[in-house]
Amino acid sequence: MKSLTRYITVNYPRRRGFINITPEVVQCVSESGIQEGLCLVNAMHITASVFINDDESGLHQDFEHWLEKLAPEKPYSQYHHNGYEDNADAHLKRTIMGREVVVAITGGRLDFGPWEQIFYGEFDGKRPKRYLIKVIGD
Amino acid sequence: MKSLTRYITVNYPRRRGFINITPEVVQCVSESGIQEGLCLVNAMHITASVFINDDESGLHQDFEHWLEKLAPEKPYSQYHHNGYEDNADAHLKRTIMGREVVVAITGGRLDFGPWEQIFYGEFDGKRPKRYLIKVIGD
Amino acid sequence: MKSLTRYITVNYPRRRGFINITPEVVQCVSESGIQEGLCLVNAMHITASVFINDDESGLHQDFEHWLEKLAPEKPYSQYHHNGYEDNADAHLKRTIMGREVVVAITGGRLDFGPWEQIFYGEFDGKRPKRYLIKVIGD
Repeated sequence: MKSLTRYITVNYPRRRGFINITPEVVQCVSESGIQEGLCLVNAMHITASVFINDDESGLHQDFEHWLEKLAPEKPYSQYHHNGYEDNADAHLKRTIMGREVVVAITGGRLDFGPWEQIFYGEFDGKRPKRYLIKVIGD
Repeated sequence: MKSLTRYITVNYPRRRGFINITPEVVQCVSESGIQEGLCLVNAMHITASVFINDDESGLHQDFEHWLEKLAPEKPYSQYHHNGYEDNADAHLKRTIMGREVVVAITGGRLDFGPWEQIFYGEFDGKRPKRYLIKVIGD
Repeated sequence: MKSLTRYITVNYPRRRGFINITPEVVQCVSESGIQEGLCLVNAMHITASVFINDDESGLHQDFEHWLEKLAPEKPYSQYHHNGYEDNADAHLKRTIMGREVVVAITGGRLDFGPWEQIFYGEFDGKRPKRYLIKVIGD
């Protein structure tokens, strides 16, 4: 069994936003030389997500508004977690969007449907944070 | 390491609904001959889900009502994504229900608890869509 | 390819709560002798979750209040599932929090970010329930 591990640092300039990280994952799968296997991509921080959806800016605005409705940032005082912190909402938003994705590798490539793209979702940015790519297989 | 890859097409006759796909996954695990490993099952479309829960019709009605409350289909104009599309709610509903499941394979079988069943969740149907089954292990 | 499978029983004394199960998972990874691979941890019951977040009691209170807002336990009669059962809300809460996590194993250890901890989330307790740990790799 072969494997490849990669850590990638993101420093998102705003509190919240989405970054298409598909090219980074594609490159890791290619470098690994793995033909058949699985690829795990996960946020290493608990106020960020990795998820798969469409790369469409209107949809990303919808995600932002929807997550603010389900888990509003303010008032900060509504959350027990927000004593020294102000990011309780980021923990909840990341829970909705998910920590990780697992993607099949078939014939040496990410085995994707027509519109699947991998995103890093930042909910408490303005500082360096990492995500992890792990490829295993033969 | 062995592997098996299978694509299955669903053409659900309504916009939304749930299909128990456990038999298809069980058959793939059996065909693979894999005794110990992991089985990934994922929707290949970004307006559909694969998830594990109970095969109970009352619960499925509850999921439908609950998802409509959290991410209503209408009015279509509430979503930025809905310019040429009308399926923004389907992207949000799929986010709640999840894209994929990973199940352990032990002794050649899906290693399930007493009530676990795998479902394909359709949120924008009436057209052919695929899900993927990938089994890896020894 | 090596593998290790472990079933752990939890009997949570209240209806809902969170248990940090990271030590159990760390021990399984160590026992497996696997240096590079993947570790799956999943609830085997459909009214419980396994998820990764921060071990901070204020945040756990926030999760409890937030899940009660998104999928309230009562009135029981609001759910179709609650004929002979009273746990429809637990199925919904588990859906938000997730069934499983997949964690990379690198250099013989769980490849975690600084604050990642694995939790078992119980939403219908007061009885024995199991979660599963599966480690595969080399």
